[in-house]
Amino acid sequence: MSDVEQLKKQVDDQGQVVRKLKGDKAEAAVINEQVALLLALKEKLRIANGGDPNDKGGKSNQPLVLKTPKGTKDYGAKEMSVRSDIFSTIVNVFEKHGAVTIDTPVFELKEILMGKYGEDSKLIYDLKDQGGEECSLRYDLTVPFARHLAMNRITAIKRYQIAKVYRRDQPAMTKGRMREFYQCDYDIAGTYDAMIPDAECVRVAVEILTNVDVGPFVIKINHRKILDAIFEVAGVPEEKVRTISSAVDKLDKMPWADVKREMTEDKGLSDEVAERIGRFVLLKGGEELLAELQANTELMASKKAQEGVADMVLFFKYVKVLGVLPYVSFDLSLARGLDYYTGIIYEAILVEENVRPTEAQPTATKANEVKDGQDIDESVVRVGSIAGGGRYDELVGMFLASKGKKSKKNEVPCVGISFGVERIFSIVMSRRQNAQLKANRTKVYVISIGDSLIEERMRIATELWDAGVATEFAYKVKSNFKAQMNHCDDEVIPWAVLIGSSEVEQGVVKIKNMLDKDAQGDAAQVTVKRADMVAELKKRLAMN
Amino acid sequence: MSDVEQLKKQVDDQGQVVRKLKGDKAEAAVINEQVALLLALKEKLRIANGGDPNDKGGKSNQPLVLKTPKGTKDYGAKEMSVRSDIFSTIVNVFEKHGAVTIDTPVFELKEILMGKYGEDSKLIYDLKDQGGEECSLRYDLTVPFARHLAMNRITAIKRYQIAKVYRRDQPAMTKGRMREFYQCDYDIAGTYDAMIPDAECVRVAVEILTNVDVGPFVIKINHRKILDAIFEVAGVPEEKVRTISSAVDKLDKMPWADVKREMTEDKGLSDEVAERIGRFVLLKGGEELLAELQANTELMASKKAQEGVADMVLFFKYVKVLGVLPYVSFDLSLARGLDYYTGIIYEAILVEENVRPTEAQPTATKANEVKDGQDIDESVVRVGSIAGGGRYDELVGMFLASKGKKSKKNEVPCVGISFGVERIFSIVMSRRQNAQLKANRTKVYVISIGDSLIEERMRIATELWDAGVATEFAYKVKSNFKAQMNHCDDEVIPWAVLIGSSEVEQGVVKIKNMLDKDAQGDAAQVTVKRADMVAELKKRLAMN
Repeated sequence: MSDVEQLKKQVDDQGQVVRKLKGDKAEAAVINEQVALLLALKEKLRIANGGDPNDKGGKSNQPLVLKTPKGTKDYGAKEMSVRSDIFSTIVNVFEKHGAVTIDTPVFELKEILMGKYGEDSKLIYDLKDQGGEECSLRYDLTVPFARHLAMNRITAIKRYQIAKVYRRDQPAMTKGRMREFYQCDYDIAGTYDAMIPDAECVRVAVEILTNVDVGPFVIKINHRKILDAIFEVAGVPEEKVRTISSAVDKLDKMPWADVKREMTEDKGLSDEVAERIGRFVLLKGGEELLAELQANTELMASKKAQEGVADMVLFFKYVKVLGVLPYVSFDLSLARGLDYYTGIIYEAILVEENVRPTEAQPTATKANEVKDGQDIDESVVRVGSIAGGGRYDELVGMFLASKGKKSKKNEVPCVGISFGVERIFSIVMSRRQNAQLKANRTKVYVISIGDSLIEERMRIATELWDAGVATEFAYKVKSNFKAQMNHCDDEVIPWAVLIGSSEVEQGVVKIKNMLDKDAQGDAAQVTVKRADMVAELKKRLAMN
Repeated sequence: MSDVEQLKKQVDDQGQVVRKLKGDKAEAAVINEQVALLLALKEKLRIANGGDPNDKGGKSNQPLVLKTPKGTKDYGAKEMSVRSDIFSTIVNVFEKHGAVTIDTPVFELKEILMGKYGEDSKLIYDLKDQGGEECSLRYDLTVPFARHLAMNRITAIKRYQIAKVYRRDQPAMTKGRMREFYQCDYDIAGTYDAMIPDAECVRVAVEILTNVDVGPFVIKINHRKILDAIFEVAGVPEEKVRTISSAVDKLDKMPWADVKREMTEDKGLSDEVAERIGRFVLLKGGEELLAELQANTELMASKKAQEGVADMVLFFKYVKVLGVLPYVSFDLSLARGLDYYTGIIYEAILVEENVRPTEAQPTATKANEVKDGQDIDESVVRVGSIAGGGRYDELVGMFLASKGKKSKKNEVPCVGISFGVERIFSIVMSRRQNAQLKANRTKVYVISIGDSLIEERMRIATELWDAGVATEFAYKVKSNFKAQMNHCDDEVIPWAVLIGSSEVEQGVVKIKNMLDKDAQGDAAQVTVKRADMVAELKKRLAMN
């Protein structure tokens, strides 16, 4: 096929996609996305056919494409209503634990972000150089937080931040991967006694995941120092630690045999070293694992192992007191990607719907039972990571060091956890899809029967606003009664105040229950004196 | 002086600035800003002295500059606490009026923003072209809102949005002008009867400005159609309408004589035409101005004047019913910059501290009394515009038209008002500067006397968290009693739970009032059974 023929075919195919979506009455945003693609292809075809490439803009036939940039989307009123509910549930927990919030700019000096994200630096969005400084959109909230601490010499803070971050990734919107998305971070910075803030992070995670009601979850934990010690005693060469660590991290979705093959065949470990790793990283369970590790004299010869195990002993003591032990699963295969972790690491994962958190609490699995790769405990197979974090004691120091002030005194140890709010949002949203979503917070709709009564409706609304009651009325001088009633139903407004000219004459209003269509008698509708209207509505709203 | 000498002097001067700021114990962010400048100058000097310009990066002596990009800043915990109070006050009013919120991406396709901001388009921040679409950071919230409506074919919505916008202006941070700042918009889109939503916008503005407590204000109003009719009958040539309009808009800060000089000498109007304009635009007052306009047969011959005056008659009727007439000032000089207004325009301004809103209500000033430029009513001289907006019936249509669908049916009339939240924030912040600001929401601090009791402190905190009480404790196994008490005072935490080993033995806790140092007897401190602790604290918190 010639280029033109190929383009023609693409235009035809894309045209079908669009027609199908329209036929299926897909979301407007989805249709627009595909229409935009179609228009772009048509434009290419036009140029391939000899059209003038510069022939566009206001006066040409080439219409302006109405869409948001790739990997971004608008959130409509109903989605935003669910989102703000989730955000305020989360913020309530953060603030209950004494956290404060800070705000940092959406872009940072480029050099602040450089050297923090390894290979992923290629995903950073840069601003165009329009004279002045080179800037990039923030990639996460952790680096700006560390920059803020170093810049302002803050040595102790418990802060949360919920804000958008940017990654120029190939978006897979259907999978929920976007170029613009929210992160939600909780971090405790400061020089404190071991594992006290670390344990509180788990408590915060349990409160949040319980309150947003995403279903059963477990919080996997591990310790970077124990992991390092394992690689050390297994005999992994220093330069291979990182790549082997990332292979181990896959044990939640791959059987041991495959991970072992990756370590030996792809990454050049000897079979013996891989086996020694397997003897440790396949262990998971609760506190009893600590005794098992402590009994291993070879491992415990490592200073790192001693430090890591001592931390975990304290950690288990504290999470018991904080009442969150049943949610914790000690998992020696948990490694997490980021380089900057230096101590405990966390990952909260959702478990199968029918597995309750306490039941999901896995018992210790002997390594030798599973090392043939058959018996990975499927009850805790990751349905999806929903929060993650850990201790990073040296990140703030990196910024301070770059100011030539590297010293123990200048270190600001941090521990934190980041919640996957986009994932939480999509779970809650899909669960509520069948329920009637209410976008507004309106409690009362003022409706006129028969006559226009626009000024009287305004007067009633004013009285209710003055009393702090969320109220609306139709912005029409003459509004059809049925249209007003329908609007009330469509917008899920629970109470209507009804007036006609006879009510106005008699100085009364009718108050009608619009939500509970089965209500009887006074519960369904009452007529009250105009002077009693506010009190009567407040009484009813308090019962809702 | 040679370049090097000049640079040396600059470095010396800047060094003094930094030392002065440090001596004055200025804010860390301010010092850092100036240190950054100093470092940049030193680097220039180094290169001017023959240093290698490429000699920087991690291993050189050139330290990483710890600052936020020009025109942006971080907000610390105390500022954020004031900010969230203001935002939630504002959102409460919006939601009380039935508004919903939407969220749009922080960047838009560049072509969406093009042609919307006239000369100011040069202030738009572009993203670097890293392959793919050309994008720019949003310049305001109105254009993305209109794009969202057109894209999703939404024909009626009452929405608010509080979000950051970006303008690559020369920042004057001391004056509060930033490159990244919040906008806070409330807009009603939909085909409704004249002036009903327009009047509600004023009611919303009055509620918000009263609730955030920025001091006395008036809301100036005018109508684009009346203004157009004035220029028409005064004989302003079509092509000069815009520039003359912007001259008239300066009447709030310049005497008439200066504005007239600008219109005649700078902009080439005849003295006669300028005088005719003056006869109208110097009018301000209340509803009585309408009669004055209606009596002017020359003006009322214009169809635009008829439409504008008819609107204003309705507007005054409605604001009276909505109870906000005393805040309204009809001001024929109000023009506002944006091209897209088509009807009523608003501007809320703060008036002198000692002028109450109702007193500030200016009486009609006869044009002939002031046309010599001496008697501009100083009581309403703009201390600062704090909100502004108006009706824009054609903006959404521009997007629909660009999709080739221009028709009356596709128009989405809008009216809205935008609040200067950064200005509101700086007023509230400067007022609270002397008060003790509380950044956190913590209500209780659990303190141990003498012994460590870390697990007991954790147990008490857990119990309080379970009961929904915001609680903290020191992250130390052994924490000094005085240090704990000081922390409680520093963080303005109102209640302390005190335990020592004798309290633990007896199964009691002490509850101490940390805020009211003058409290006596039980109000100052009580000892209660451990089992009664939560109930006792809840009772006390309810009284706070």
